[in-house]
Parts: sequence; C-alpha cells; structure tokens
Amino acid sequence: MAAERTLAMATCTAPVNIAVIKYWGKRDTDLILPINSSLSVTLHQDQLRTTTTAAASRDFTEDRLWLNGKEADVGHPRVQACLREVRRLARKRRGGGEDAAVLSLSYKIHIASENNFPTAAGLASSAAGYACLVSALARLYGLEEELSEVARRGSGSACRSMFGGFVQWQRGERPDGTDSLALQVAPETHWPELRVLILVVSGEKKPVGSTAGMQTSVETSPLLKHRAEVVVPERLAQMMQHIQERDFEGFGQLAMRDSNQFHATCLDTFPPIFYLTDVSRHIIALAHRYNAHHGHTKVAYTFDAGPNAV
Amino acid sequence: MAAERTLAMATCTAPVNIAVIKYWGKRDTDLILPINSSLSVTLHQDQLRTTTTAAASRDFTEDRLWLNGKEADVGHPRVQACLREVRRLARKRRGGGEDAAVLSLSYKIHIASENNFPTAAGLASSAAGYACLVSALARLYGLEEELSEVARRGSGSACRSMFGGFVQWQRGERPDGTDSLALQVAPETHWPELRVLILVVSGEKKPVGSTAGMQTSVETSPLLKHRAEVVVPERLAQMMQHIQERDFEGFGQLAMRDSNQFHATCLDTFPPIFYLTDVSRHIIALAHRYNAHHGHTKVAYTFDAGPNAV
Repeated sequence: MAAERTLAMATCTAPVNIAVIKYWGKRDTDLILPINSSLSVTLHQDQLRTTTTAAASRDFTEDRLWLNGKEADVGHPRVQACLREVRRLARKRRGGGEDAAVLSLSYKIHIASENNFPTAAGLASSAAGYACLVSALARLYGLEEELSEVARRGSGSACRSMFGGFVQWQRGERPDGTDSLALQVAPETHWPELRVLILVVSGEKKPVGSTAGMQTSVETSPLLKHRAEVVVPERLAQMMQHIQERDFEGFGQLAMRDSNQFHATCLDTFPPIFYLTDVSRHIIALAHRYNAHHGHTKVAYTFDAGPNAV
Repeated sequence: MAAERTLAMATCTAPVNIAVIKYWGKRDTDLILPINSSLSVTLHQDQLRTTTTAAASRDFTEDRLWLNGKEADVGHPRVQACLREVRRLARKRRGGGEDAAVLSLSYKIHIASENNFPTAAGLASSAAGYACLVSALARLYGLEEELSEVARRGSGSACRSMFGGFVQWQRGERPDGTDSLALQVAPETHWPELRVLILVVSGEKKPVGSTAGMQTSVETSPLLKHRAEVVVPERLAQMMQHIQERDFEGFGQLAMRDSNQFHATCLDTFPPIFYLTDVSRHIIALAHRYNAHHGHTKVAYTFDAGPNAV
C-alpha cells in the first residue's frame, strides 16, 4: 500500500502575450466568451513572467492566495472558477474514485504568485497570472491535457498564454464556450527575427480595469459592435497570412491599425476610457516618423489597456 | 444717368458654430459635400466672431486678401470658389447686362478678415471666416438670397454659421451638391437657458488640419464609414428631438457621445490623429465627475478638431 501523500507542491512559470488583433468585449461575462477572435504573440519568459507555486496539504485548514507577497482574496470568483474547473477535470480523469497514491482533491490549497513586472498596468499581467495558476494547479493534480479553456475562465487572454509563438483565441460559437479555445498558429521558432521591445510609460495601475472597461464598451459603443462583427474577421485572416509569410510590412501596419482601433472603441465608450497618455502619443508619432524616414515599416507599436508601448 | 460707382465697401461679422453632431469626412472634396449630416449651435457674436471687410474699386489692380493683418494668398482655391460663386450669382441676378448704377463685377477686390480668437486651433475659425467672407461679398454685390451653399464651398461647416440658433447641415443626395444646405432647426430664442463655455487649452495651430485629417480618415478608418452610414442618421433624429424638447439630459449626453465618437474615428485613422491632450482628458473626467456628483447632466462637453473644450 502506497504511503498517503500529505503534501504536494508544483511550481510553474508563464509568459505574457501581446495581442496584435485585440480582444475587447465579452458576449458572456460568466464563461468569459469574447465578442471577437483575437491573435497574439507570446513573449519570451526571460524578461516578463509570472511564477506560481501551488501546494496542497492535509494540514492546511483553508485555501489561501498570495499575490506578489501580499495575501489576496482566494474567494475571487475567477480564482474559484479555475480551482473548480481543474479539480473537476482531475476528478473526471480519476474516474470518480479516491486513490491514496494520488493527491486528495479534498486538501486545501495554498497558492503564491509573483510577477517580475508591474501588475495591472496594461502589460497582460492577468493573462500570465491565470495561465500560470492553471498550469501550476494542473501539474499539482497530474493533469496533462490542454487547459486553455480553464485559463480562459480566469482571464480571457490568459488562454493565449498557454502557448508559445503566435496564438489565436477563437471566438467560438457554442453558448457553453467549449469551442472558445486558444490554438497555436505558428511556433516561436517561426519568425526568429521578430523582436519585441516594451516601453514602460507608467507602472501605475490603470484607471479603469479591463473587465469593467470592456463591459461598458460592449454596452455603450456602437463602433465596438461594428468592429467585432465586421472589421475583426477580415483583419484576422489578413494577420494570419502576414504571419505565415513573415511579412513585417503587413504585420506591423495591421498591428498598429488594430491597436488604434481598440483605443478608438475605448474613446467611443461612455463615459470614455483613455488608456493612452501624451507620452504614449509621442511614442506613436515617433514610430510613424521613423518608418516614414526609412520608407517602410521597420517598427510597429501596439498598446494594451494601458499607456505602455509594446 | 447715375454716377459710376468707383469704390464700394461692405463689412460683416459672422459667428462661430459648434457642432453637437459632428461633421468629419467629405464624399466630394471639390464641392465639399459631407459623408453625413451634422448639427450645430451657433454662438453669440459677443465674444467670438470674425469681422470681414470687402472692398471693390476701379483703382485696384489685383485681388488681395489680409487675414488677421497679414497678407494671405487670395489665389487659395477655396477663396476663389467663394469669389467665383458670389460673382456668378450676382451676374445671374443682373440678367447678364452691366449697369453703371451697380458695382461692376470686373473690379478687383480687397478683403480684410480678422478673428478675435485663435485661428486654426479647432475653434471653428474657418467656419466663421468663410461665412463672413461670403456675407461681406454678398452685401458688396447687393445679393440677398440664402448663401449657405456658397459658404460651404469655402469650408464645409461655414454653411452652418450663416444662421443663428440650432442649425442642421443636410448631407444631401445630389452629386452637384445643390441639396447640401444649412437649415435653421430652431432660432436662438428657442433655448435661452443654454450657456456655452469655452475652455482654451491651447491657442496653437492644430498639428493636422481638418481638411487633410478628414480626408485621411475617409480613406483609412473603417469605423468612420460605419459612423456616417449607420450611427449619425439615428443620432441626428434623436438630437433634433432633444433640442425641440429642450431636454438637456438627452442633448448633453448625446453631444458628449458624439464628440467622443468623432475623436475615436480620428484615432482609427492611419496614421492616427490626436486632437485631445491630457488636459482635454482631465476636462472630460471633470465633467463626468461633476454630473455624477449631481446625479444628472448639468454640464456637457464637445471638442472640435483641437484640444479646446466647449
């Protein structure tokens, strides 16, 4: 008879991803189903990454969570959704029976997560954070399957951080969200010349969080609706082709246009949301001047829900 | 036999108008025909106005133009279009024959125009300017008819400055532009409680002029197209009703939304156009906080192609 496992621990790291066709707006806020598909580039973990350790023990009396060294609310619905989904998958895999040789699903859990970069400053911290949480939990419970659907329940864009390289998050059609998944479009080795630079304009927390912001946009912006229904499907197909052909002229131009359009829909939101500052605008102008000087697209920018340029 | 008139002079003033449903984009750049109808409030001339004097004399050897005391290019196509159109109307009215008792249409003309506010800073200086030019020329030649169509040839929004109160510039359908006219929706006496405040953020010339900016928007912004075709027609009908009912809640909310949407289409333009600065954004946030504090819309903002708040 195997010894009962009374403590288990798993540590993972997860990368940040930067969308070049942006995700903004949910059609289902509970299941986190987007109004449009999106496409991102996953960054190297050398510089920006989340590290998460998950531990389970018979001796723990309650679930607990620490973010960047400070205890946080483990009861947060999204954290709970991830925990619940991972445990559900683990239970399913075990066929329902408890086996003393594997970690008991009834043990309480402690989670410690840390970003080596500013949190909630529009640098995809929640994407890396939830991707990392789900990976750590999955490793803890010995799950091996593809878990982008679970990561999505933590933060929409987290599903894209479950893969390296170029990743598409398919909108999906089903109401239960089972087809709203991330897929790798091309591996990280596909376009090694591509370099990503991050200009940190401000490390402060953004004035309007993405979750609240995009919900207001869905409710109030007529332009966002048009973008999701008409513009993005066309752009997504174009972007896939630019990536396939490693065409930086097309890729960069479209990434800039899509970043601008995302911020345009924020401005069309009521009350309006501004993530770009005067400094962000100077960076944009600089990129256009630089490209104009060289006569072609040598640099491109994209801004997530914050003032920082990528 | 009447004495030949060898010098004639006429002076007019014209007001600024502030659009609450914005004009941005031409479907015909030569005739200045807009992609959507717009609606504006004409301001009192007490504070912001253009004053223009037009003189014609047998002794003038060439047409000349002074703007704010400095000689400017009278050959500018838009100045020429206004001159040509007014002279054409005058000729038509006289039935083709020259009459010594009226001012000869062959005399050269001198025009002096002055704004008592910053020019080209997004404060509708060209609207007031061309409205004033056309009025002064019309008075010089003794024309009395409605000339918004001629003013439109100088600057699109100038046609709205030909009337006081609430003014709609109808998009029109005809290719020759004869139905693209300004109409008074309600006189200035209709809503005397309405007060207009102008917060000058910067008196500098705007980085991208309206003419060039809107043309780039028409060519590159998918959101502008949707705005003109779908959003504006609905909003125009709503705005007319708010004005009719003197409903400031509805009027103010829609004016703010439409201002934001216009700036959103500027951001969706490629390369993007930014007229709002961080200071403009602080004013916007202040207005929303002020209204939230009072629980209803007590103030509204609108920004034309510049950082200055109205």
